[in-house]
Amino acid sequence: MNTVVPLEIERLSRLSTDILTKHGFSDQHATAIAKIITTCQIDDCHSHGLFRLLMCCETMKAGKIDGQALPVLHATEGAVTRIDARQGMSLLAFEAGLPRLIDNTRKHGIAALAINRCFHFSALWPEVEQLSSIGLAAMAMVPSHSWVAPAGGKRGTLGTNPLAFSWPRSGRNPFTFDFATSGFARGEIELYLRAGKPLPEGVAVDKDGYPTTDPQAALDGAMLTFGGYKGSALSIMIELLAGPLIDDLTSMESMKFAEGMGGAPYHGELILAFDPDHFSGGQTARNDARAERLFADIVDQGARLPSQRRFDARARNIARGYVEVPAALFEDLKTLQNGG
Amino acid sequence: MNTVVPLEIERLSRLSTDILTKHGFSDQHATAIAKIITTCQIDDCHSHGLFRLLMCCETMKAGKIDGQALPVLHATEGAVTRIDARQGMSLLAFEAGLPRLIDNTRKHGIAALAINRCFHFSALWPEVEQLSSIGLAAMAMVPSHSWVAPAGGKRGTLGTNPLAFSWPRSGRNPFTFDFATSGFARGEIELYLRAGKPLPEGVAVDKDGYPTTDPQAALDGAMLTFGGYKGSALSIMIELLAGPLIDDLTSMESMKFAEGMGGAPYHGELILAFDPDHFSGGQTARNDARAERLFADIVDQGARLPSQRRFDARARNIARGYVEVPAALFEDLKTLQNGG
Repeated sequence: MNTVVPLEIERLSRLSTDILTKHGFSDQHATAIAKIITTCQIDDCHSHGLFRLLMCCETMKAGKIDGQALPVLHATEGAVTRIDARQGMSLLAFEAGLPRLIDNTRKHGIAALAINRCFHFSALWPEVEQLSSIGLAAMAMVPSHSWVAPAGGKRGTLGTNPLAFSWPRSGRNPFTFDFATSGFARGEIELYLRAGKPLPEGVAVDKDGYPTTDPQAALDGAMLTFGGYKGSALSIMIELLAGPLIDDLTSMESMKFAEGMGGAPYHGELILAFDPDHFSGGQTARNDARAERLFADIVDQGARLPSQRRFDARARNIARGYVEVPAALFEDLKTLQNGG
Repeated sequence: MNTVVPLEIERLSRLSTDILTKHGFSDQHATAIAKIITTCQIDDCHSHGLFRLLMCCETMKAGKIDGQALPVLHATEGAVTRIDARQGMSLLAFEAGLPRLIDNTRKHGIAALAINRCFHFSALWPEVEQLSSIGLAAMAMVPSHSWVAPAGGKRGTLGTNPLAFSWPRSGRNPFTFDFATSGFARGEIELYLRAGKPLPEGVAVDKDGYPTTDPQAALDGAMLTFGGYKGSALSIMIELLAGPLIDDLTSMESMKFAEGMGGAPYHGELILAFDPDHFSGGQTARNDARAERLFADIVDQGARLPSQRRFDARARNIARGYVEVPAALFEDLKTLQNGG
């Protein structure tokens, strides 16, 4: 059954906040979470849209998250902003740290935001796109749970460790990517499991280290990184920069912390921002033109820029005023909305 | 013929500076270049060791490089150091900018060094390892020439765009990687060509866009990125950050600038540095231990950390006091040393 339900865009936010507040999130947290979920759903980014409300509720049931926690900014100097999410969901902490990240980037040319002690379930592209929407370039990364084997290994050590990047384009959608350094995103495997579909070859091994295409065996075993030893190296870099560098957990430690209770992983997040005006010595205009020539050469040979499908979905969904949600998911959401 | 010639380590630097000064590089440039070439050769990093002296001489013959250029630091504020290599080789500019990069990183927590208008032939790992050797984490990236097709494309738009990263480990070799975002490094393809060996499948297309394993056809056609669309996205990010962000050329523009004359590409370079003590709020020791547990879990399952082969070679070559150089290359170098 692939039936879908149309859902008006104006109802997305209310549906999300209803579910979140009914399940223990403060109004502030619910609003911050609903904003990101709505943003993802409008772009047909199903794995990180309304589907993730289920994980938010599971996270609350697992008992470790503080749905009321108010993030606290560390009194730091320099170009690094450190914010303690105090075991709340990451998104309110991101919002609270963002103004200082922006100020520091404008002031120093480059700056970082380190979010500590947060539960994390969300796509990173809405965060880097908030920065590119005001003319800054940005990169974001997080560990997750140790579901992914390093190149040449056979058990989970690394997280799915996504890397996101966004580059501002005047009057156009930004150049944005947001990919898991695992061959597949964990959320995608969960969608395959729900849909009863086999995985492609080469993205996972079972609990004994053998290749598998069974979503449940993959979830019980270990995923593989994309791109062989290079993807593995990149994933380790993300562990280090968004973990030990910022005094926060690795994916192994996050997994251990969860004690098998499910829900969102608990760890840190690192966001870097770059001010093109500062880096280019005020030559932003001519360098924007230079970047556009690069993008044009990619598109002219029939290749696509990353996120193009997402931007197309956004335009289509906004124009028609509704998104399409899998009917089974919509039923689950209605149950949650009624406090189930 | 795979015969090799032993060459005493103490002779590497003198051989390199002799060749470089005989071919138009100032003593300062020759010393900076020889230092990196020697470092690479001691690690058996053949593609970026003595072999690259040929490219340095070719670059001089191509006529655009200034072998005497003294780099000039821009009077910039904030955490970004900008240095103009003034059409010289990159390495002297890196050396000149490094102290300010280190000062800025200690002061701000995160800092960047942008090298502009440089010819560039060198591996990035010796640069990031200079930073990790004093306790900083570091990342470096450069464009090159537009030899690499984007995912879904069929002609060269992107450079081989290497990304390097190094993480300091107390009393041990650092965690370091340095990989081309192309499936193969350009230097590797040149070594295959010299050796008359076919390339692996999937790393290149010919000039008509068809897959090829012929090294010369690959050099005449386009290389592919590693890791499909994710590697391609990463490569585009490197184009943007080490190009338009810092007011310097993309790989397409670098290729155009060369006018088919060969030699090293001409473009910019971006180095980022991170102070773990600053990011962790002074908790470096416990986070070093955390990183070591991560590395131990990787090694314990039989996987290798990146650069391990290089560190092993370094230990072996330093212990025996000599490196092994292909005999044919050594003949070429002797000819160059005699002014040929």
